[in-house]
Amino acid sequence: MNRKIILGSASPRRRELLRQIGVDFEVRVSDKEEHYHSVMPDEIVKELALMKAENVADELAGETGNIKDTVVLGADTVVVLDEKILGKPEDEKDAFRMIQQLQGREHKVYTGVAVLDFDSESSRHTVNHAVETKVYVHEMTEEEIQRYLAAGDYKDKAGSYGIQGSFAPYIDRIDGDYYNVVGLPVSYVYRTFRELGVVF
Amino acid sequence: MNRKIILGSASPRRRELLRQIGVDFEVRVSDKEEHYHSVMPDEIVKELALMKAENVADELAGETGNIKDTVVLGADTVVVLDEKILGKPEDEKDAFRMIQQLQGREHKVYTGVAVLDFDSESSRHTVNHAVETKVYVHEMTEEEIQRYLAAGDYKDKAGSYGIQGSFAPYIDRIDGDYYNVVGLPVSYVYRTFRELGVVF
Repeated sequence: MNRKIILGSASPRRRELLRQIGVDFEVRVSDKEEHYHSVMPDEIVKELALMKAENVADELAGETGNIKDTVVLGADTVVVLDEKILGKPEDEKDAFRMIQQLQGREHKVYTGVAVLDFDSESSRHTVNHAVETKVYVHEMTEEEIQRYLAAGDYKDKAGSYGIQGSFAPYIDRIDGDYYNVVGLPVSYVYRTFRELGVVF
Repeated sequence: MNRKIILGSASPRRRELLRQIGVDFEVRVSDKEEHYHSVMPDEIVKELALMKAENVADELAGETGNIKDTVVLGADTVVVLDEKILGKPEDEKDAFRMIQQLQGREHKVYTGVAVLDFDSESSRHTVNHAVETKVYVHEMTEEEIQRYLAAGDYKDKAGSYGIQGSFAPYIDRIDGDYYNVVGLPVSYVYRTFRELGVVF
């Protein structure tokens, strides 16, 4: 009954969010690259989350011969504007272009979640889902965008922003789970863990 | 043009949120008690925020003889269920009752904001407003409520919860500014500061 929980993500923010559920877990990341075949953003993040979790589970099974009484959690977050995914910016110019597109309107953030639940006979039960949060960014002047970018917080962030920190003054409101935008839909993961009997 | 900004609140969370706007400010709190005459919760928080700011401004003016080129920011946050304010719990039993009421449904959080802007001639311009965020708490079993309370995070919190931390697994979604629930509507305060020329 007492399963080992493995978070298949290197993100310190995800680690912190998973801690809020109050479970003990280990972090393990696979180096294997993920590729996707889906077309719609919510399907793409589901696929990427599943692949991340499967890569970790495969490596674990390869080492130990089998994998049992273990839950592997994979997650992937994307920023979506007009059904197109905004990735991480290449440079400041690229980040400017992204923020320019995001300001003055609504966009969506999807986090794909994959939970691989291996029972005592190594048989696997899979839950794979994408959670959506709408984010409303206020209109920004070019000066405001420049000032935001100058602080450097856009680096290595999907869509060139993080909802925590120096972009906060420009986010009017969200509709959905806040933590989903940070990187892990805490409420959804908790519910799933409960349904699977991982937490009580 | 360069005004001194004073945050009239002892809350470390408000201090951290105001820092996100990127302004320098001092903290100053008045011991004077606030009383209100309004009936509706959004009017009550406006009144309380205004009184907090005014008490700080009065004390400052009393010391220095006058108050100029200074902005005083007051804020007050309440949790509202069916138009009734849920205060801080007296004890664990009281907290249980509050969480029992909040679970399985939507409630509102209002933060009242008061900005007193004193110009170089000590003449005052006032902005006083309440920002609303809807919060949806998932259904909770008695065991879940007990487990949440056992961690002690309900203490000294309006409505017996903080949106950050160990209550996060039970919050399905919000509709509005997340930081408004934490204690300061960062986006609204930033816009107001811009309109007043406090930030550029």
